[in-house]
Amino acid sequence: STQRTIAVLPGDGIGHEIMAEAVKVLENVNARFKLGLNLEHALVGGSAIDAHGSALPDATFELCARADAILLGAVGGPKWDKLPPADRPEKGGLLEIRRRLDLFGNLRPAILYPQLAGASSLKPELVAGLDILIVRELTGGIYFGQPRGIRVLENGEREGYNTYVYNESQIRRIGKVAFEAAQKRGGRLCSVDKANVLEVTMLWREVMDDMAKDYPDVELSHMYVDNAAMQLIREPKQFDVVVTGNMFGDILSDAAAMLTGSIGMLPSASLDVNGRGMYEPCHGSAPDIAGQNKANPLATILSVAMMLRYSLAEPDAAQAIEDAVSKVLDKGLRTGDIFSPGSTLVNTVEMGDAVIAAL
Amino acid sequence: STQRTIAVLPGDGIGHEIMAEAVKVLENVNARFKLGLNLEHALVGGSAIDAHGSALPDATFELCARADAILLGAVGGPKWDKLPPADRPEKGGLLEIRRRLDLFGNLRPAILYPQLAGASSLKPELVAGLDILIVRELTGGIYFGQPRGIRVLENGEREGYNTYVYNESQIRRIGKVAFEAAQKRGGRLCSVDKANVLEVTMLWREVMDDMAKDYPDVELSHMYVDNAAMQLIREPKQFDVVVTGNMFGDILSDAAAMLTGSIGMLPSASLDVNGRGMYEPCHGSAPDIAGQNKANPLATILSVAMMLRYSLAEPDAAQAIEDAVSKVLDKGLRTGDIFSPGSTLVNTVEMGDAVIAAL
Ligand SMILES: CC(C)[C@H](C(=O)O)[C@@H](O)C(=O)O
Ligand SMILES: CC(C)[C@H](C(=O)O)[C@@H](O)C(=O)O
Repeated sequence: STQRTIAVLPGDGIGHEIMAEAVKVLENVNARFKLGLNLEHALVGGSAIDAHGSALPDATFELCARADAILLGAVGGPKWDKLPPADRPEKGGLLEIRRRLDLFGNLRPAILYPQLAGASSLKPELVAGLDILIVRELTGGIYFGQPRGIRVLENGEREGYNTYVYNESQIRRIGKVAFEAAQKRGGRLCSVDKANVLEVTMLWREVMDDMAKDYPDVELSHMYVDNAAMQLIREPKQFDVVVTGNMFGDILSDAAAMLTGSIGMLPSASLDVNGRGMYEPCHGSAPDIAGQNKANPLATILSVAMMLRYSLAEPDAAQAIEDAVSKVLDKGLRTGDIFSPGSTLVNTVEMGDAVIAAL
Repeated sequence: STQRTIAVLPGDGIGHEIMAEAVKVLENVNARFKLGLNLEHALVGGSAIDAHGSALPDATFELCARADAILLGAVGGPKWDKLPPADRPEKGGLLEIRRRLDLFGNLRPAILYPQLAGASSLKPELVAGLDILIVRELTGGIYFGQPRGIRVLENGEREGYNTYVYNESQIRRIGKVAFEAAQKRGGRLCSVDKANVLEVTMLWREVMDDMAKDYPDVELSHMYVDNAAMQLIREPKQFDVVVTGNMFGDILSDAAAMLTGSIGMLPSASLDVNGRGMYEPCHGSAPDIAGQNKANPLATILSVAMMLRYSLAEPDAAQAIEDAVSKVLDKGLRTGDIFSPGSTLVNTVEMGDAVIAAL
């Protein structure tokens, strides 16, 4: 097969450690399955600010733009929190890649691994077998809406303002991702909005209803965001696929991930209209444990699997990685975040090695 | 003492049934403690639409405006969901009272009654003794921000938009409510925002930081809203008082309420600058069980207690009601929503009678 390029962006904090393990795994399947993948590394976020004065240097963006897929660790940390928000690793790095590559389709699975059933804060019977997919719109809504800013009013005091905005095409294209995902899964799609208060989400609801006619095999329901937050806690297994805007998706996907009790296990994909995309763990850069060889690399390793499946059409290699992760969990190996008495505590590198061994 | 007026607005759905019990309790303490309260009833929401063609008839608003306090049941139901959003019970009734009376300070306690420890979806050790107060700004933010609407773009497609806006005085006055509440409680205040993305919440954070200087006895922290949703699930007891804007408060207060597993137990207060306010249960109008004498009246009864304490300065009468509710729970009486094997199932009226008997 022809050479394909993977942009590898470790980022900040634990990003370097978890990415090192993910790269070991990726190189392993690359060789074994003859995937012809060429890995190119670049800096993003705080590490790029330190080296080049920008959270997204031109060379990094140029690599991302030509790569067949992007693998990201995590960005951010206290060191850069005093910078103006637009220059920080999150907004200047992560959100910029999303926006400039139009990675609007964010897939965040919240899966509870049977081996980790006890890790959830919820009672086991409520979460056993949990498997939700949150589809979050990622390049529109209030994250990117104009006008925005902080202005001085006539009376001298300041006012902050942001704009929550979606047009019909933006809603349709994320709706398509969600309806198609529901078709491939349990056939149920719950669209989350606040249509009893916000006009922008009234339009959202209308477009979703309209699209439902083209997907007779998908059962569409609507839920207000406050109720969705409650229902995720009350009875999470009622959901199959959830679709929502950028801001609500940020909140609900984190809540859903936390339901599994093992956010260190969850990958995510952010796709453009052609299915090209960026893959990253759901967790952050965890500055408190950075450099200590403690972080759980499995979310990043599972992001590699997701990348192989969604953007590179290599389902066998993806499956091999997922099976290997499952085997490692079966063996009782656990990093600190998912540790429970009776299992074996391992560090980041040992966990990566164990996945390779299981491959 | 002089006569004081209480506006009693049952609303829709189970609103009538739960309010009947709350009124029984209020009349009881009114007589016993010689409170001199004069109860006047009015329609709001769907029932007002049916009778007068408006979710907030002039007579109802006039009563609310002159009353010393307002007691509300719940509004809304499928019957009125086809109306234009602005005319519906929620926006045309509830949000209009909040807005026109400037009831900006919304207090939503999330308390787990020891007698109901098993009702939570969370593991008992994570929620035992839970006692959080969510302070939500209620008359600003994206709920009321202008401009808003749905417009047609040049290319013919539609776009929905809302504005998330706060000025410094709005932030300060809700901050004052929250800091003062924290002073009276555990002395810890967590302000929730999305200051890494939204300018309006950067201003929010700055103002909270500035105010903290005037409250040296309160320990202020900040948390992003996505993390707050996670932390509420992971370790809810880390919170004492949480302060946030209207939209985030809507989501987080419902999540926090659901953590207790007994949203049928939770009251709320919405106050203006003078401490005058509206009191209502946290739950909705539950059309599915309306008219069946099944609903839990305790949240409304506890709203009466909150009203006596916060707006009417009658702490003894408030305490008497709270003690009576506790006794009823001790006796094992439970409506369906909080029922567990071994306890005694009662209906709405029986629960109200039991509270009266315990008074
Ligand atoms: C870091 C932050 C800007 C980002 C977001 O809010 O989108 C993160 O929370 C996420 O969900 O990927
Ligand atoms: C009914 C609805 C408009 C309302 C809100 O969003 O404020 C409700 O959810 C609440 O929290 O009181």
